[in-house]
Amino acid sequence: MQSPEPFDLILFGATGDLAMRKLLPALYRRHRAGQLPDDGRIIATARSELDRETFIERVDGAFQERLDAEERDADDWQGFVERLQFVSVDAAEPRGFGDLGAVLRDRDDRTRVFYLAVAPRHFVDICEHLQAEELVTDRSRVVLEKPLGHDLASAQAISERIGAIFAEDAIYRIDHYLGKETVQNLIALRFGNMLFEPLWRRDWVRDVQISVTEQVGVDGRAGFYDRTGALRDMVQNHLLQLLCIIAMEPPTNIGADAVRDEKLKVLRALTRLEGQHALRNTVRGQYRAGAIAGQPVDGYLDEEGVPEDSRTETFVAIRAELANWRWAGVPFYLRTGKRLQERAAEIVVNFRDVPHSIFDVTYGAGQPNRLVIKLQPDEGVRLHMMAKSPGDRMQLRPVSLNLDFAEAFQQRQADAYERLLMDVLRGRLTLFMRRDELYAAWDWVEPILDAWNEAGDAPKPYTAGTWGPAASSALLGREDASWHEES
Amino acid sequence: MQSPEPFDLILFGATGDLAMRKLLPALYRRHRAGQLPDDGRIIATARSELDRETFIERVDGAFQERLDAEERDADDWQGFVERLQFVSVDAAEPRGFGDLGAVLRDRDDRTRVFYLAVAPRHFVDICEHLQAEELVTDRSRVVLEKPLGHDLASAQAISERIGAIFAEDAIYRIDHYLGKETVQNLIALRFGNMLFEPLWRRDWVRDVQISVTEQVGVDGRAGFYDRTGALRDMVQNHLLQLLCIIAMEPPTNIGADAVRDEKLKVLRALTRLEGQHALRNTVRGQYRAGAIAGQPVDGYLDEEGVPEDSRTETFVAIRAELANWRWAGVPFYLRTGKRLQERAAEIVVNFRDVPHSIFDVTYGAGQPNRLVIKLQPDEGVRLHMMAKSPGDRMQLRPVSLNLDFAEAFQQRQADAYERLLMDVLRGRLTLFMRRDELYAAWDWVEPILDAWNEAGDAPKPYTAGTWGPAASSALLGREDASWHEES
Repeated sequence: MQSPEPFDLILFGATGDLAMRKLLPALYRRHRAGQLPDDGRIIATARSELDRETFIERVDGAFQERLDAEERDADDWQGFVERLQFVSVDAAEPRGFGDLGAVLRDRDDRTRVFYLAVAPRHFVDICEHLQAEELVTDRSRVVLEKPLGHDLASAQAISERIGAIFAEDAIYRIDHYLGKETVQNLIALRFGNMLFEPLWRRDWVRDVQISVTEQVGVDGRAGFYDRTGALRDMVQNHLLQLLCIIAMEPPTNIGADAVRDEKLKVLRALTRLEGQHALRNTVRGQYRAGAIAGQPVDGYLDEEGVPEDSRTETFVAIRAELANWRWAGVPFYLRTGKRLQERAAEIVVNFRDVPHSIFDVTYGAGQPNRLVIKLQPDEGVRLHMMAKSPGDRMQLRPVSLNLDFAEAFQQRQADAYERLLMDVLRGRLTLFMRRDELYAAWDWVEPILDAWNEAGDAPKPYTAGTWGPAASSALLGREDASWHEES
Repeated sequence: MQSPEPFDLILFGATGDLAMRKLLPALYRRHRAGQLPDDGRIIATARSELDRETFIERVDGAFQERLDAEERDADDWQGFVERLQFVSVDAAEPRGFGDLGAVLRDRDDRTRVFYLAVAPRHFVDICEHLQAEELVTDRSRVVLEKPLGHDLASAQAISERIGAIFAEDAIYRIDHYLGKETVQNLIALRFGNMLFEPLWRRDWVRDVQISVTEQVGVDGRAGFYDRTGALRDMVQNHLLQLLCIIAMEPPTNIGADAVRDEKLKVLRALTRLEGQHALRNTVRGQYRAGAIAGQPVDGYLDEEGVPEDSRTETFVAIRAELANWRWAGVPFYLRTGKRLQERAAEIVVNFRDVPHSIFDVTYGAGQPNRLVIKLQPDEGVRLHMMAKSPGDRMQLRPVSLNLDFAEAFQQRQADAYERLLMDVLRGRLTLFMRRDELYAAWDWVEPILDAWNEAGDAPKPYTAGTWGPAASSALLGREDASWHEES
């Protein structure tokens, strides 16, 4: 694949955590792989009054921590440093934008990417300052990180103000789950093979589970998290995006709008959860003191910065349904939370059991087929099936097939941000959320929040280091299902 | 699994090739595995006037050739020898049956298995002598090897005469292809999983290929082979049996009659090939001189014992169809022959292509999914699929999944005869052909033979060491299909 066109990438929040941990290492790796055009520039900006040398030292420090020794080649590093500039810019003040303009001036003909790795409350200010300085060219793109609003109204407000400055097809709303190789392999499996598509429907699928569990707590982000909660922080974006990829109809092609049209249809097909219906089909939890990996940890209410009467959910489980021909009646169980037993992100497709076993049950019953798509901590796809036990009896035993195709993993797996950054530079929107998708996701999430507020009760407590409140198991138990938990 | 009941196994043709190469080694291995009851006896018989010691020496010689050194344990061998008796019996004369009776007398209460590893022309004589000597008890079983007749009439004649002596459920018509672990794993895959059954039909399957190719020629059996030909020798039994396992509806259970009822339905659903229709859907071939593995070999007509004007086919390819809801219109291509390029037995299920590719074709078209079930020389099941190539592009690449589930093969695979002998001793008929199946197979094969005779032309010549006559490729080519050939 050829290199992207020459570009200027303006990175806001360049001294922040995301930039140092993910974005700059991702850019460095693609630089090292020879995939960035020679004169592609990275213009780091931050509010801090740093000089370029100090910034580069910080990057160097971050790389020493994040990159393998073999990756930190002296020549590659030197080449990368040559791409780096630093401009001090305060989102609230026009002054820095003038300095930025001086750097960008005379480069209006190249791809210009503004990557806003900053708190969302600065998004609109930054964009408006960019416009005021006349830095938004025809070839400019803007990359936005979640959270894109706090509810439908705020998401609309942000989108409309940014939409007045950038065309919709210049706005890259990033959801790094979509950049994962395994999520894309799932698209390849579904639509590159005849085998899966006929099975991928209510006739043969019993339930789908999408589970993103974390061991971390609020990690110094208590102020933000307490206003947000698990539903807004994780479900509205990541979990619903994964649900779209699993549930969508075959798009006409993998172009951006064909795929996003199909994802939008999924979001709009979600049965609305309102009032009692929402309460019955969701479980909110909040962690209490417990232990993670043998170490005692505080409860949520004891965390620095969390009000002692907080009702913010740190865990949510939802039974969702899609009102369409393909999926009617199939439960989509969503689950996410902090301070859980394992860090794992996975999608599980549980197929129905065989309608009748022809085999002698004294040799043990078969188990239903199950496809497990793991996104975290390791990526991989496994298909659980039954095969014959070797020997004289027709006895079944479970076997699991690794569908990541061993050879694929001889290559280093690109980090999701690497892939997505290259897509931005190449102008490929397929893996980014469109505005109407964002609205549709909020539109589904909001009535659940309303129902919780009206109910006015507290989230169910759960002990840190468990799989969440018992009600989460009960949500599935009432349909004789259970969460896929390997450990 | 527990040992079978105490038994007397009377092996006719004990000095023959099948007994020495397959049956006695199979019994020895099960003896060694502790799976034969202590007083299970093996009473070898042959026309030769051997004494027991000489027979045992011959077995010892055969084992040294056939078994691994580690299998030839002195204690195991000694124990096995103690089971062995030898009685000289000539099928044509009653005298030997009296001697046999003396050995069997007073053991009427145990399982008695007569294994007729002799030419089929002796089947009826032997059974009638056994009856005359009153050696056929309620607990007696008889095992018959192919060929079970030369046509429908002769198959019926043999079956009816033997059926007057043995009840149908005491007759074990052996087809060693059904004893292969992989064929049984195919049953487990089809009916132990929800995944395959919905795909296993005309909607998703483009064609099925069953191919048994040999490198050997007629190997000193020219007299027999020239009267028989490939259609009778291989298709009527082995290939049709495999077709039944692939195509049958789910049986109610894996009991003998439930499975055989379903297989029978497949045989009866085969569209009759008569007259011009037979000629158009079959290809007959006969090998000419050529080379196998670099060594020159004679043509069929030059083989010792083959008439120089022989029209016997050493190769046959057939396009069969099943007239039922599941398979209507799906070609089942059958192929078998001698002096072909490779020795291989395999079943290939070619799935239809995806109806529309959503992926960018400049990255190469996908390939249709394919399931390959290998029976020879090695057993195994592989599923050929498409996955995403690692990297930024949504590019597909073919991958193949091994469905034999590596661990299964840490155990030695039992030889088909081992499995089938144990089934006989245990009284399990599932993997043996029932009389009506035999008739149905002949009933389908016979009109093809008639059509060939009426046409009166010679088989198409092919060079030894190739894949058969060009017409075989053309048979598939007219439907834009081709034989699965890996080399």
